[in-house]
Amino acid sequence: MAKKTHKELMELAIIEARKTMNKDLGGPFGALVINDKNEIISVASNTVLGDNDPTAHAEINAIRKATKKLGTHDLSGCTLYTTAYPCPMCLGAIIWSNIKKVYYGCIESDADEIGFRDDFIYKFIENKRKDISILDLEEKERSTCLKLFKEYKDKNKPLY
Amino acid sequence: MAKKTHKELMELAIIEARKTMNKDLGGPFGALVINDKNEIISVASNTVLGDNDPTAHAEINAIRKATKKLGTHDLSGCTLYTTAYPCPMCLGAIIWSNIKKVYYGCIESDADEIGFRDDFIYKFIENKRKDISILDLEEKERSTCLKLFKEYKDKNKPLY
Repeated sequence: MAKKTHKELMELAIIEARKTMNKDLGGPFGALVINDKNEIISVASNTVLGDNDPTAHAEINAIRKATKKLGTHDLSGCTLYTTAYPCPMCLGAIIWSNIKKVYYGCIESDADEIGFRDDFIYKFIENKRKDISILDLEEKERSTCLKLFKEYKDKNKPLY
Repeated sequence: MAKKTHKELMELAIIEARKTMNKDLGGPFGALVINDKNEIISVASNTVLGDNDPTAHAEINAIRKATKKLGTHDLSGCTLYTTAYPCPMCLGAIIWSNIKKVYYGCIESDADEIGFRDDFIYKFIENKRKDISILDLEEKERSTCLKLFKEYKDKNKPLY
């Protein structure tokens, strides 16, 4: 089978996005994961509203589908296509999955243009998470929680 | 019922973390969501290895359980307890869920201490996502993807 082009792959992600978008299940976002042989492992879209799940962005859904299918949490060697620049949550998920290459379609200002304000989370992070009008992070019971870390360290287990 | 203390709540998260940690299903991380009446909505732990899911951090699992239970993607008014400072993926999920208050136990350097290197994702973001040895993000087919955004804008739908 001929290697799929960037355009063909992105269009598959767009078709998937339209399916859920047109049923009001989520925003206009699609993503897919291919492996190093250019085979499609998963295609997914944003289903935040349909699934009552704020984490159900297209990229997260595509990663979860792919890892479920492959039976591993590790997508090393895979590439992700996404119709729009990933938000920090999805960026984190991509990195944790060991994907090293992402092709994105729309840029951040395109999302702004249609009313999405994803960029505020990047700004919050870049400003060291100090703006408590967005999120107030407070340390509590550190010594209690450190016991758990100590127990884990003593087990000498994988770090995920 | 008496209002639970920070310590009591954090200990519930720790107990949950131990359950999965001791079965080798994931790392030493627990989290829980309470509502504005101090009622526990969900308790969860890291199940990355058990679920073959790189997104199955304790905070994400707790948010997904809570939203599923409440039948909404919106956790406004809720508070999250987590045994360790959230990674960028979880931080994003917390913000998307509209949770505004997080109590965390262990600090970032505690995680470093037992071998977890979560902080590299924060550094990657703070450095404007330019380090391609971590993740290479490349724009492709923007004009193709912009059609999807245009379709969505014309629908005048919620922005999730």
